Amino acid sequence: MAISTVVFIGAGRVATQLGLSLIKESISVLQVYSRTIESASALASLLKCNFTNDITSLTKKADLYIISISDNFIAEIAGQLHLQNKIVVHTSGSVPIEILKNTSNHFGVFYPLNTFIKEKIINLSTTPFCIEASDDQTEEKLIGLASRITSDVRQINSKERAVIHLAAVFACNFTNFMMVNADEILKANGISFDILMPLIGETIEKLCDISPKMAQTGPAIRNDTKVMQKHLEMLKNDPNKSMIYQLLSSQISNFFETDKNKADDSKEL
Amino acid sequence: MAISTVVFIGAGRVATQLGLSLIKESISVLQVYSRTIESASALASLLKCNFTNDITSLTKKADLYIISISDNFIAEIAGQLHLQNKIVVHTSGSVPIEILKNTSNHFGVFYPLNTFIKEKIINLSTTPFCIEASDDQTEEKLIGLASRITSDVRQINSKERAVIHLAAVFACNFTNFMMVNADEILKANGISFDILMPLIGETIEKLCDISPKMAQTGPAIRNDTKVMQKHLEMLKNDPNKSMIYQLLSSQISNFFETDKNKADDSKEL
Repeated sequence: MAISTVVFIGAGRVATQLGLSLIKESISVLQVYSRTIESASALASLLKCNFTNDITSLTKKADLYIISISDNFIAEIAGQLHLQNKIVVHTSGSVPIEILKNTSNHFGVFYPLNTFIKEKIINLSTTPFCIEASDDQTEEKLIGLASRITSDVRQINSKERAVIHLAAVFACNFTNFMMVNADEILKANGISFDILMPLIGETIEKLCDISPKMAQTGPAIRNDTKVMQKHLEMLKNDPNKSMIYQLLSSQISNFFETDKNKADDSKEL
Repeated sequence: MAISTVVFIGAGRVATQLGLSLIKESISVLQVYSRTIESASALASLLKCNFTNDITSLTKKADLYIISISDNFIAEIAGQLHLQNKIVVHTSGSVPIEILKNTSNHFGVFYPLNTFIKEKIINLSTTPFCIEASDDQTEEKLIGLASRITSDVRQINSKERAVIHLAAVFACNFTNFMMVNADEILKANGISFDILMPLIGETIEKLCDISPKMAQTGPAIRNDTKVMQKHLEMLKNDPNKSMIYQLLSSQISNFFETDKNKADDSKEL
């Protein structure tokens, strides 16, 4: 039978996103657990369900238990749960599936690959869901559930998921930090960040058509030392941004120079 | 009188973009100059106009001369041009307006803030155009011309433009290099980059609603040392990515920690 009832263990950003997406698909959320009664009740009121901050009073009636808490606490919580014959999953990018092997005989991973903040509930319909499971039957049920939320469901093992999570840190977290730096540079000069939005949009839109490697532009790939020198001069009182500028510029120059050499080599063959 | 005829000095990505945008608005491009006859003729055939690789045979009949070449060569070309009573502009983010002061008595900057690649002609209708001019009359004409291409025309002086250009290097060039790194990490494990596109899209879309500072997520801002340690272990044979990971993670942790301290301080007041 397909999964039709769910309990959330954790009431943070991912639980909120998933909870809202699931009830929209008429999946019943029976209960929310969180360490603090405030956060448990806040999500429960959003999902119109019961809540608790006592792990021993979890209902045993759900088909699926979704552990959606900080990576560092999954092992601890998993050790306190005994849910044989129920499916238990976590939603983490970096934690192996085996962490749940003593919690139930049916376990897995249900990892939505996106970035979630409290301030913004997003539509998950194109978000890749990375699914992994202890057994075929569990896998089939998790794929079925994910398919109700998104059109992009993938079977991904723990090693691949860790790789994807690492790549996501570069593509999302580090990228966002580049925006933080750009914002700080502009702010120091009284210029609003919105002037960059069309540029940023195009930077990303290009990637629908061509690879990031093909899309690279800027002074570093041109090895335009005059411009880079001027930029470093502008950053001379800002050692942090200066370090980023130097490291990334030299890596861009080297990466594409290496590449050019390779291309030249292959022409000589 | 408004600008109605243009000559391009340079036939690269910016000239191509601007040329196509201008002829769509019924501005006549009279001629294209480039150092190589091949690139001059290639752009001229796209814009259906004359071309030359001899700077001394530039037509004197245009209202506006757009110098759109590498920053490093603008001074040299400007020194060879004598176009009194014509408007001469360059399109660079980092070169001061004064570089053109001996070329004509009417000069300026016409800087479209976006990222251009050969492979993709884009719609410039929301691209900010940063305008600067030697005199009010020239400024008015350049603003009039830019307004035909985009809805976002801004008067920006050389100092502000340099700041914007530096911020753009972070927001566009360095961001794209984060994507190059993510792509390399995935490729080494046989995973296609497209799995990251919804995440990347959301990373940027968030910035329409909240500041980059508010939007930061990931292990570094949570100071999740276990995950970061695991990621560095995965990168142990890749010193370049490892350096980026360490520098940016420590800067993210410090930046937001400093901020947290500030918040805590202010609570104590």
